[in-house]
Amino acid sequence: MYKILNHINSPLDIKNLTLEDLTILSEDVRTFLLENVSKTGGHLGSNLGIVELTLSLLKTFDFDKDKIVFDVGHQCYPYKLLTGRKDEFKNLRQYGGMSGFPKRNESSYDFFDTGHSSNSISAALGMARARDLKGENYEVIAVIGDGALTGGEAFEALNDLGFHKTKMLVILNDNGMAISRNVGGMSNYLTHIRINPKYNQIRRKIKSRLNKRESNVFTNAIRKVKDSFKELFLNSLFFDDLGLRYIGPIDGHNLKELNRVMRQVSNLEEPVVLHVVTEKGKGYALAEQNPNLYHGVSKFDLKTGVLKSDKITYSSAFGSALVELAKHDKKIVAITAAMAEGTGLETFASKYPERFFDVGIAEGHAVTFAAGLATSHFKPVFAVYSTFLQRGIDQIIHDVAMQELPVVFAIDRAGLVGNDGETHQGVFDISYLSMIPNMTVMAPKCPEEINAFLTYAFFLSKPVAIRYPRGGANYAFKPLKEIRMNRWEVLEKGRDIAIIAVGNMCGVACKVKEELGIEPMIIQATFIKPLDMKLLKQLGEQNYKIVTLEDGALIGGFGSEVRRAMDIFGYSNPILNIGYEDHFVSHGTPDILYEKEQVDVKGIAQKIKTFLKK
Amino acid sequence: MYKILNHINSPLDIKNLTLEDLTILSEDVRTFLLENVSKTGGHLGSNLGIVELTLSLLKTFDFDKDKIVFDVGHQCYPYKLLTGRKDEFKNLRQYGGMSGFPKRNESSYDFFDTGHSSNSISAALGMARARDLKGENYEVIAVIGDGALTGGEAFEALNDLGFHKTKMLVILNDNGMAISRNVGGMSNYLTHIRINPKYNQIRRKIKSRLNKRESNVFTNAIRKVKDSFKELFLNSLFFDDLGLRYIGPIDGHNLKELNRVMRQVSNLEEPVVLHVVTEKGKGYALAEQNPNLYHGVSKFDLKTGVLKSDKITYSSAFGSALVELAKHDKKIVAITAAMAEGTGLETFASKYPERFFDVGIAEGHAVTFAAGLATSHFKPVFAVYSTFLQRGIDQIIHDVAMQELPVVFAIDRAGLVGNDGETHQGVFDISYLSMIPNMTVMAPKCPEEINAFLTYAFFLSKPVAIRYPRGGANYAFKPLKEIRMNRWEVLEKGRDIAIIAVGNMCGVACKVKEELGIEPMIIQATFIKPLDMKLLKQLGEQNYKIVTLEDGALIGGFGSEVRRAMDIFGYSNPILNIGYEDHFVSHGTPDILYEKEQVDVKGIAQKIKTFLKK
Repeated sequence: MYKILNHINSPLDIKNLTLEDLTILSEDVRTFLLENVSKTGGHLGSNLGIVELTLSLLKTFDFDKDKIVFDVGHQCYPYKLLTGRKDEFKNLRQYGGMSGFPKRNESSYDFFDTGHSSNSISAALGMARARDLKGENYEVIAVIGDGALTGGEAFEALNDLGFHKTKMLVILNDNGMAISRNVGGMSNYLTHIRINPKYNQIRRKIKSRLNKRESNVFTNAIRKVKDSFKELFLNSLFFDDLGLRYIGPIDGHNLKELNRVMRQVSNLEEPVVLHVVTEKGKGYALAEQNPNLYHGVSKFDLKTGVLKSDKITYSSAFGSALVELAKHDKKIVAITAAMAEGTGLETFASKYPERFFDVGIAEGHAVTFAAGLATSHFKPVFAVYSTFLQRGIDQIIHDVAMQELPVVFAIDRAGLVGNDGETHQGVFDISYLSMIPNMTVMAPKCPEEINAFLTYAFFLSKPVAIRYPRGGANYAFKPLKEIRMNRWEVLEKGRDIAIIAVGNMCGVACKVKEELGIEPMIIQATFIKPLDMKLLKQLGEQNYKIVTLEDGALIGGFGSEVRRAMDIFGYSNPILNIGYEDHFVSHGTPDILYEKEQVDVKGIAQKIKTFLKK
Repeated sequence: MYKILNHINSPLDIKNLTLEDLTILSEDVRTFLLENVSKTGGHLGSNLGIVELTLSLLKTFDFDKDKIVFDVGHQCYPYKLLTGRKDEFKNLRQYGGMSGFPKRNESSYDFFDTGHSSNSISAALGMARARDLKGENYEVIAVIGDGALTGGEAFEALNDLGFHKTKMLVILNDNGMAISRNVGGMSNYLTHIRINPKYNQIRRKIKSRLNKRESNVFTNAIRKVKDSFKELFLNSLFFDDLGLRYIGPIDGHNLKELNRVMRQVSNLEEPVVLHVVTEKGKGYALAEQNPNLYHGVSKFDLKTGVLKSDKITYSSAFGSALVELAKHDKKIVAITAAMAEGTGLETFASKYPERFFDVGIAEGHAVTFAAGLATSHFKPVFAVYSTFLQRGIDQIIHDVAMQELPVVFAIDRAGLVGNDGETHQGVFDISYLSMIPNMTVMAPKCPEEINAFLTYAFFLSKPVAIRYPRGGANYAFKPLKEIRMNRWEVLEKGRDIAIIAVGNMCGVACKVKEELGIEPMIIQATFIKPLDMKLLKQLGEQNYKIVTLEDGALIGGFGSEVRRAMDIFGYSNPILNIGYEDHFVSHGTPDILYEKEQVDVKGIAQKIKTFLKK
């Protein structure tokens, strides 16, 4: 069914293709992506959008010596496909199979592992400087979306790049989207360029005329205001102001234009920003019409398309609870860093647009901005994925916790997330939040009780993080209606052994009980921090053996603190901490990963058995 | 001795001063600052540079309703002085005395606590949006230096501000310096504007003519290229591109101009960037000539000036060791985020300029950039203060540790730093680094052994952090010449009790031994991570009571991991963890702070006595 794709086994096979061949190949690639991603799930829209750009890059550059860094990396499928990994797509994002992101250990054509946003220019700049220090000669390219450009690190890198004039190519893959529609002054600026091509045509004309010092009415007028005027023209654009040469915008689906410009920029000895306009989801009508929905997909039927799930998840429950609370409290405001849909804030955004802030992919700013709102007596909630909040840790410490400002962090995707793999696992938040003074860290055991947690967080009026996993309930619990301050909840009475579980691990604990056929006390650690010292003391006095269960890293984690507390009390109850060992957890379905990490029902039951025998 | 200052008790007293009065007051303020800071120590250059700007702000705005956020905050002394805190300067940065940074709990005129860089626009934007939501009417001002503008968070905030057009004033206090000379494309751009005032005069003229649609040679030429041309002019500057109105540059020491422009901008209903050019150290010749040296000072003689100390510190020892190693290994490269002097990299920078990279105040970028260099087989060292590396935690996890790239983090100012207070204490690094898989975390006990640690780090060729405190040796140790992989060092043999100490706490442990008159084993935990399991096992088998000593937070800290390891082995040796409890540590001399935290010799001895009695 593929006319050319079957003959492409390495980038070399692309070099001699004609424009016509490339056009056919681009169709093949799209068909392949749709066929495969609809079966395995994965990122779709961004990959459909970058087909021609990838072909043009592979046609122009030689990645046996040149290097490329894909920002975020969820647009690397065409590149993977055309660099010898066609057969791996059947195992895309499956445990042991090919990653959905670039991976250096997967191919010599991958030069940097990515997953988080806005770091590609920094990494590529490191490679370019290394090249120059070694006196070598190859191209270094960063491919970054306009969404990722709102992240401060991208600016930090552009600032460095423009100052030192390192030879490097930044390809701005501009589709007007982050995962959602892109925001920010930069985005406006790019749109302005995009919809008004004359803007830069004119600029180019002026530049060339000024350079030629042609004498005509136009340049005469210019000369009247002397040299500084020339500067005004030549350094008039954003990227130029930073010291970078800007070229574009060009049509990212026009292979002829792409190839022409790509050849041109490959010969420039300066930092260049090449602005390429693409369409997310290009070539699959459903994805073009609804790029959000097709950004990342589970397997779906190509004809009927992706069906929106109406299953209650932690994200949707959070969104509903917040809308409900905000109805009665006008001080509640919500912040997202370009993830309104993922974090369940869609309804809030449409119901209370004036109280909803999408700050772009800019977690650091989001946190401090929330702190600013809090100083003015608002009740900001920053809804964010656990892994992405890693970008705002300093701001939590410095701008929120130190001033003890009432910012609520609604931490979604806490714990293992699955197929996105190590860059996206939310396993560090308990550790990085627990170390911060003045923080309260909490976890619901089922989506239905998020309301009670949020209510408590607003009531407390201090920095509070509520962490919850991807997906929905894993056990049929009766949700808590109210949170007792700094107190845990005994879910099941029992004897000899107490399992203290965080969040969704409560459900796992209940299943473990059934598996083991023993009668443990099961405690929900509604508060990860502070600990329920009263209950811990009771457990200590009554000689319970203690098992802690958390969907997070063991080092610096909840269990570690329980252990420290018991020792400070002077109790010597045996304690078993269950969570993730000191390694990164790769991609795969959560079920497989839990099993491999031995934090599934079976693994935990086994560990507890061994523990009880000691 | 002060002509006007003595009559200023609140901002109200400034409102009616004439230009002449203000000029005299500016002299008074400078005299006061020099007199006081030379006695207490503190930030000098940045405060001398902002005197007129502060006066003009207080004259124009009403901070009983308007709000102001000082970025970093080390330019807030004139503001503190003139908002009723004159008498507090004698206790500046002393324990229990006035902070060197803005503090909301110190005055109702301080609106946001600062200390770290580049977050002021975010915080102020939160306040401005809060104002608009409440339908209130006051000004919100962020004062940010050109150095702080290289931090990505500032860009994230400008991007948000420009997009939503929130009414707010950003004052760009441009002195061409971070702590050192400022770098980056943005800095070049500002310099360009600064040295070429016509650049913007012309722009203003053009704007006004275009608006008036005057008919002359100039606008005729313009009309030929139609509407888009107008855009080219009107949106031609960096800030304009982001959607902000740019005004400047103006002379930050010309009170008349400042007052005029300040009145003007106070009436604008849009986001404005006011570019004010100031001189760091203004009015004190020695500081003008050597702004680096006078950025932050200990007490000094006003006539002779600050004397450069040639005491060996950890920073200087690190610098010397790195220069020595780099002589023989051309792959060694060094990175700083605008702190070359503070981190001891001056000599390296002058000896190996091509291998030295100052990326600006941009820690996130610095980390990923180092990762990029490492993928190309260089050996990057990022020298950075513990507290500032908090800005790069995600990048350490995501760009360095996940790929196990050989980046060395030389973490200076780890532990308590003293007078800068809570925003600068380096107490979290052990916790945030230990939780990261693939990290090796180490600590020398005296400056002289940094060479051995660096040598080991390069040899290991994996992600390694070496943490060390501000200042120099606290005990006369024989330095280690070589590091044994993952092994600790027994500094003193002893019995019954083993003190395992991290870094400078080794010296404290030796003094504690003298104080207690007992014979503990004293162990240097050369490796904070991984632990020396072999030695721990021995201690376990031989029933040692264990005391861990670290200059860091207890939660997620070294002691916590020692405890976990012993429990996993199944030993039940009593363990005492000494470090910082779960609170922020305020400003004061390190000696006083150690005492208050009970991690001084006396406090530790007391704790150990109690522990041994148990």
